[in-house]
Amino acid sequence: MSKLEGKVLVAQGGGPTAVINQSIVGVTLEARKFRQVHAVYGAIHGVRGIIEENFIDLTRETSHNLELVAGTPSSALLSTRDKPDHEYCERMFAVMRKHDIRYFFYVGGNDSSDTVRIVNEQAEAADYEFRAVHIPKTIDNDLAVNDHCPGYGSAARFITQAFMGLNLDCRALPGVLIAVVMGRHAGFLTAAASLARKYPDDGPHLIYLPEVSFSEEQFLADVERVYREYGRCVVAVSEGIVDEGQKPIAVKLADEEERDAHGNVQLSGTGALGDLLAGLVRSQLKIRRVRADTFGYLQRSFLGVVSPRDAHEAREVGEIAVQFAMWDNVDGSVVIQRPVLNYGIRYDLVPLNQVAGKTRVMPPEFISAQGNYVTPAFMEYCRPLVGSSLPEPHRLRAPLVTKD
Amino acid sequence: MSKLEGKVLVAQGGGPTAVINQSIVGVTLEARKFRQVHAVYGAIHGVRGIIEENFIDLTRETSHNLELVAGTPSSALLSTRDKPDHEYCERMFAVMRKHDIRYFFYVGGNDSSDTVRIVNEQAEAADYEFRAVHIPKTIDNDLAVNDHCPGYGSAARFITQAFMGLNLDCRALPGVLIAVVMGRHAGFLTAAASLARKYPDDGPHLIYLPEVSFSEEQFLADVERVYREYGRCVVAVSEGIVDEGQKPIAVKLADEEERDAHGNVQLSGTGALGDLLAGLVRSQLKIRRVRADTFGYLQRSFLGVVSPRDAHEAREVGEIAVQFAMWDNVDGSVVIQRPVLNYGIRYDLVPLNQVAGKTRVMPPEFISAQGNYVTPAFMEYCRPLVGSSLPEPHRLRAPLVTKD
Repeated sequence: MSKLEGKVLVAQGGGPTAVINQSIVGVTLEARKFRQVHAVYGAIHGVRGIIEENFIDLTRETSHNLELVAGTPSSALLSTRDKPDHEYCERMFAVMRKHDIRYFFYVGGNDSSDTVRIVNEQAEAADYEFRAVHIPKTIDNDLAVNDHCPGYGSAARFITQAFMGLNLDCRALPGVLIAVVMGRHAGFLTAAASLARKYPDDGPHLIYLPEVSFSEEQFLADVERVYREYGRCVVAVSEGIVDEGQKPIAVKLADEEERDAHGNVQLSGTGALGDLLAGLVRSQLKIRRVRADTFGYLQRSFLGVVSPRDAHEAREVGEIAVQFAMWDNVDGSVVIQRPVLNYGIRYDLVPLNQVAGKTRVMPPEFISAQGNYVTPAFMEYCRPLVGSSLPEPHRLRAPLVTKD
Repeated sequence: MSKLEGKVLVAQGGGPTAVINQSIVGVTLEARKFRQVHAVYGAIHGVRGIIEENFIDLTRETSHNLELVAGTPSSALLSTRDKPDHEYCERMFAVMRKHDIRYFFYVGGNDSSDTVRIVNEQAEAADYEFRAVHIPKTIDNDLAVNDHCPGYGSAARFITQAFMGLNLDCRALPGVLIAVVMGRHAGFLTAAASLARKYPDDGPHLIYLPEVSFSEEQFLADVERVYREYGRCVVAVSEGIVDEGQKPIAVKLADEEERDAHGNVQLSGTGALGDLLAGLVRSQLKIRRVRADTFGYLQRSFLGVVSPRDAHEAREVGEIAVQFAMWDNVDGSVVIQRPVLNYGIRYDLVPLNQVAGKTRVMPPEFISAQGNYVTPAFMEYCRPLVGSSLPEPHRLRAPLVTKD
């Protein structure tokens, strides 16, 4: 079989992560090894860069600078929220043909994998021979078939370190501290707050996830119980928590809803949900010191918090994607699976429709029976993903002085 | 002269920092070397721990655990916002006499130094011989006489790394991104965002400080100009920005003001200011993607971001405080001064009334003429404080592909 000759195109879509550049560097360095690859192009701002014909020639990038970029968070090729329709894809093909692009690697989440699926279908319909591979990436950790997704481990590490600090802060100056964590449909990232606990009275004491319908009554009862027991209460809340009717709590209060091209309502970039919950506690429980923090974009972009394991895997899914396309001449979505409990993974390629547009949420065995915390099974799942050398808080252990 | 014999008491007041425990460990380890010291006590929850007689015996803490606690952020002895009055101080003395406490070291900011001053005056009035030394600490960097304060460097480093990331995020998915930084009266912490810039178009593009009266008109004009030039705009805003009448912008909108015992209005722990400013931009400039992040308590408590220089100085001010009290038998406030431009500091002890209750703000030479940024002089001042080995963002430099 003659090898498919032409150019490679790599792009990034959706929200950035701390390690997403590892994947495009993995694609670039690996693709440059193959003789049938005439050049490696990067599309600026994802699929939009394709229709606008905005490419940079990564064949001419130094390996040294690629390594530096790999260690930098956020999409170095810049990103987009565009969701291609039929007409959009036709324009993409016109550009691809002109540049003899035969391999397309798109690094992204649910929406991006759906984009790859549509593009691939269009290519087949247009009888244009090319390989399209979706490379997983999402801090939400919500891609189907995958055990976990590149980007999640580093964001989970940030959340862990953040809650270690918030817990210490709320111990020094006690009150109720509510922190809102990213996660539209899946609570994996919020759940990582559980790894912050070291001592028995450490927070977070309560964790609310989008998978469990949120009840204001239970929330208030939970906070009151914890506050009575410990004199303080640290709460982790997913931005995507919903009521019994599946309506996001954050949306209930928003004056105006803002939706992107995928129909998603804006949940991040505002402190409204945290302020609402803090107001509830203040007014209903008469607790004086109530604070709400909304972590915002630091969760996915903070410079300096990376899970080493996450970085390695993000690099490797890029390389693996190229190898599947070059050696096996197949399309699909790269997935990460963990066949045994002790940490060890394997990569696989599955048909795009198994991943595209689907959302994986926390399985029931990861959520506590009361729906306000996670189980040890989740912590066992999550702990290796945040990587090694996690900082650890320490307490004074000196004895109390007798009062009389 | 016979040496003043008795116990040492150390406590922490006000908001935690990433390195405040270095100071109590410095006090403890240094004080344990002196023969006239019968024991080193730590008061739990600051001055409140004194009137409640809640002490732990730090003489019985292992040096090893003290070193681990020194590396942990947030007040290990726990904190308080209490501001002692005359009656409060009398109760403190009763407890101090009972325990033969003769040396009092209080680690804190403006309010805490004022507490030390009041306590010391009470001691003199009561003819109770003891030494009281204030040890500086504040992420706001606003203590009088000091060149800078322990705690500031690490918080400034967090802000720098945060804005490096936010800038990358806003470059990948362009829009207007407003981040609200702690700082009630002084803009030093917000100003540290300027160190995040590496490339000419990097954010933050605008910095608003409490020292400059905030005009909504100028803010909107600034954001529009930057957005037109770069297609995006990253803004750093102090939580304490005020209007021409010195009224905090955050307070203008708060339904109810919450004040602590020092008369301070709550500015942190809510996303209201960021959401207000984002709403302004969205409605007045018709820019679609506008986001607001409020950093909250992560700025002072995040586990894992410490300026090595800040940690060393925070340790040393604790040791220095003990040395002044033991060798020189004097009261006062330890200050850090920087006599030359190249980094090199000296410690001194000044009378408490030079520091207590006073607030240092950004000097005019640190603020740009337009009042919406900082000067190179500020960056030269701040850069050594955030410490070495700061992470650095990197960009792809591959050439653009010709369109035809």
